[in-house]
Amino acid sequence: MTSGTMIYEGKAKKIFTTSDPDQVVQYFKDDATAFNAQKRGTILEKGVVNNKVSERLFRLLEQNGVPTHFVARTSDREMLTKKVAIVPVEVVVRNVVAGSLAKRLGLKEGEPIEPAIVEWYYKNDALGDPLIADDHVRLLKLATPEQMAEIRKLALKVNGVLQPFFGERRMILVDFKLEFGLYNATLILADEISPDTCRFWDQTTKESMDKDRFRKDLGRIEEAYQEVLKRVCG
Amino acid sequence: MTSGTMIYEGKAKKIFTTSDPDQVVQYFKDDATAFNAQKRGTILEKGVVNNKVSERLFRLLEQNGVPTHFVARTSDREMLTKKVAIVPVEVVVRNVVAGSLAKRLGLKEGEPIEPAIVEWYYKNDALGDPLIADDHVRLLKLATPEQMAEIRKLALKVNGVLQPFFGERRMILVDFKLEFGLYNATLILADEISPDTCRFWDQTTKESMDKDRFRKDLGRIEEAYQEVLKRVCG
Ligand SMILES: Nc1ncnc2c1ncn2[C@@H]1O[C@H](COP(=O)(O)OP(=O)(O)O)[C@@H](O)[C@H]1O
Ligand SMILES: Nc1ncnc2c1ncn2[C@@H]1O[C@H](COP(=O)(O)OP(=O)(O)O)[C@@H](O)[C@H]1O
Ligand SMILES: [Mg+2]
Ligand SMILES: [Mg+2]
Repeated sequence: MTSGTMIYEGKAKKIFTTSDPDQVVQYFKDDATAFNAQKRGTILEKGVVNNKVSERLFRLLEQNGVPTHFVARTSDREMLTKKVAIVPVEVVVRNVVAGSLAKRLGLKEGEPIEPAIVEWYYKNDALGDPLIADDHVRLLKLATPEQMAEIRKLALKVNGVLQPFFGERRMILVDFKLEFGLYNATLILADEISPDTCRFWDQTTKESMDKDRFRKDLGRIEEAYQEVLKRVCG
Repeated sequence: MTSGTMIYEGKAKKIFTTSDPDQVVQYFKDDATAFNAQKRGTILEKGVVNNKVSERLFRLLEQNGVPTHFVARTSDREMLTKKVAIVPVEVVVRNVVAGSLAKRLGLKEGEPIEPAIVEWYYKNDALGDPLIADDHVRLLKLATPEQMAEIRKLALKVNGVLQPFFGERRMILVDFKLEFGLYNATLILADEISPDTCRFWDQTTKESMDKDRFRKDLGRIEEAYQEVLKRVCG
C-alpha cells in the first residue's frame, strides 16, 4: 500500500493509490490548520490519534448499520479505505451551540440544541466553505435531493450512535463534521471522525478536548488529543 | 390615518397606527441604505416611486391569488395595510446570478437560474441578516415548517406572476426580497416590492434599474427609479 503514489495532499491527510483501483490509503499528518488555513501549526502525534479514533468510530458505526469507507487500519498513521467520489458538502451536526453558529445567529455558546440540527457547507477552500441550503446544493448540482435526504438521515443516525458512546466516556459531543462519498453509486461515510472534526467537551469541566484548543490557543493541545485517544480506544 | 402615531422607523419606511388596530400606514422615505446600513444616502422621490410600484404589484398579485397586506394607497408616500406580525425571515427569490450569491458561491453574474431558487435570511440587522437554512428557522423558532413551506410556495407564485409582468416591460427580474406576516393566523405578503427590494435589468442593455445603482455608485439613480415607475405604472 505504502508503495502507491500520492494522488492528493490535503490540509490534514495525504491520499495514496493502492494496487486495488477501488481502494485508497489515507495517511494522517500532524499538520493543523484553522480559519480556512490562515492559521497553521503542528500537533504532535495528532495523525496517530486521528487515525486510531477514526478506526474505532468507523467500526462502531458499521456495527450500527452506517456504511463507511473503512477497510482496515494498516499502520499508526495509515488507513485503507474504499475510494469514493466525495460529495463536496461538509455535513455538520450540532447538539450544542458553539463556534460559528453562536456568532452567526447570536446564540449563547453551550445552549443545548434539541433536536440536533444538520447543516450543509459547500466544500470549497477558495470560497471559505460557505454555509448553503438545499436550493444551493441543487443549483450547484452537488448532489440530488434524494442523496441529500439520505445524507441527512445517515448524519442523524451517526449522531444517534456517537452521542451515547461519548456520553459513556464522560464527553459531550457538541458538534461534528462528516463527509460522504459515492462508492458504486451508494452513499457511504468517508474522511475521518476525530478531534480535528468534532467538538468534544469534558462532561465535568466543560473544557475543550479538540481542535478548538489549537484554534483558540488554549494550550495542552497534545494532552487533549491523547486524552481523547485514551477515552475512545483505551 | 396621518394622525396616527409612529410605532416604528426603519431604514426606508415609517409605520404609523390608524384608528383601526388591525391596520397600519407605511410611509415611504427617500432614505437609502446599503451593506447593512454602512452606506447611507438619499434617492430623491424614491419613496413615491416605491409606494406606487408596490401598489401596482400588490394589486396584480391579489388578482392572481396571492394574499397581501395592501388595503389602499392613501397618498404619494403612504399606503394603508393590514397590520401583521412579520415573520423575521427575508425571503429571496433568484432567477439570475447576482450580488451576494455570485460572491458566496463563486458563480458568474448573469447566469440564469432555472428553476428559480428560494433563500432564507434571518431578518436581524445586528447580525447582518445572515443566510439560514430550514434547520435554523426551526432552531430559532422563526416559523413552523408548515409556514415555511407555505411561504416558499407563495414566493414562487409571486415569481411566476412578476417574471412575465416585467418581461412585458422589457425588464429582467433578476431577484427580489419578500417579507411575509401573520394576519389572523394567515400568512400574507407584506412590506414592499420596489426597486429597493428587487434587481431589475433592462432587457436590452442589461443595465441595473434598481438600488444596485446606489450600492455600486453607478449614477443616474433617480432616473432609473423614475424609469421603473414609468414602465410599471405608466
Ligand atoms: N475514501 C475516500 N476516497 C477518496 N477521497 C477521500 C476519501 N475519504 C476522504 N477523502 C478526501 O481526501 C481528502 C483528505 O485530506 P484532507 O487533508 O482532509 O483534505 P482537505 O484539506 O481537502 O480537507 C479530503 O479532500 C477528503 O474529502
Ligand atoms: N403590514 C405590516 N405590518 C407590520 N409591519 C410591517 C408590515 N409591512 C412591513 N412591516 C415592517 O415594517 C418595517 C418597514 O420599514 P423598513 O424601513 O423596511 O424597516 P427595516 O429597516 O427593518 O427594513 C419593516 O420592519 C417591515 O418588516
Ligand atoms: Mg479534510
Ligand atoms: Mg425593510
